[in-house]
Amino acid sequence: MASYQKALIAVDLSQESNEVIERGLSVANGCQVSLMHVIEPLTFAYGGDIPMDLSEVQEQLQNQAQDKLFKLASDNGISVDDCQVVVGQPASEIHRIADESDIDLIVVGSHGRSGLALLLGSTSNGVLHGANCDVLAVRVHPSD
Amino acid sequence: MASYQKALIAVDLSQESNEVIERGLSVANGCQVSLMHVIEPLTFAYGGDIPMDLSEVQEQLQNQAQDKLFKLASDNGISVDDCQVVVGQPASEIHRIADESDIDLIVVGSHGRSGLALLLGSTSNGVLHGANCDVLAVRVHPSD
Repeated sequence: MASYQKALIAVDLSQESNEVIERGLSVANGCQVSLMHVIEPLTFAYGGDIPMDLSEVQEQLQNQAQDKLFKLASDNGISVDDCQVVVGQPASEIHRIADESDIDLIVVGSHGRSGLALLLGSTSNGVLHGANCDVLAVRVHPSD
Repeated sequence: MASYQKALIAVDLSQESNEVIERGLSVANGCQVSLMHVIEPLTFAYGGDIPMDLSEVQEQLQNQAQDKLFKLASDNGISVDDCQVVVGQPASEIHRIADESDIDLIVVGSHGRSGLALLLGSTSNGVLHGANCDVLAVRVHPSD
């Protein structure tokens, strides 16, 4: 079986994102790689019933996320043209981008949670289900 | 980041097992590979309250599974010494063998189920949670 053609590495911008990218690049082994981060909209987090305009804060968050993502990309030899920050529900957005771009490998970080966190769900779990391609969950080891 | 040292490919012996093995070997990229299959004990499936001795049937199932696994191994250039059939709950047994053997990559097939199947759980989901190493879920496409 040939190896992968197009890999999508999705990071949460935590300190462990570098580990996930390095591992993804190693498995992708020279194939085309793109990098993404998904921001959940503030209205998701705050229920949307607060009478204030969050659009400016949202824009600041997106700009900050983009700066971080570009830094990670440049540290790992990925072009900023292959980076994107999108707003939405992480697993859905990762699936959407993967489908649109004919991705054959999605790489995400996994904290190896079990028990309660399993019930609450996690991004790596959400990404695995419903993905139309292979998914590599990179086990990260948070320092704390 | 160096690539993997020891990979464990877990198959369900379905028709798609060859796909999973081929993909696993491609990602493992020359590292040490072992192959396993987990049989759920009949008492799990039948509740254990039926007054009959299932040990002979269980043994036959194990022998059949072992024959199938050896065939898959030999078709893919894996030594039968690196194959094992174990009895138990799939995700737990895969984690146990992975921990005991210092595995750094587990490869499993994934049917990409969502919705109801997500609630009911699946082996790839179970393997992802609680794994102490990376997990590659290979998206298989059943012919039916």
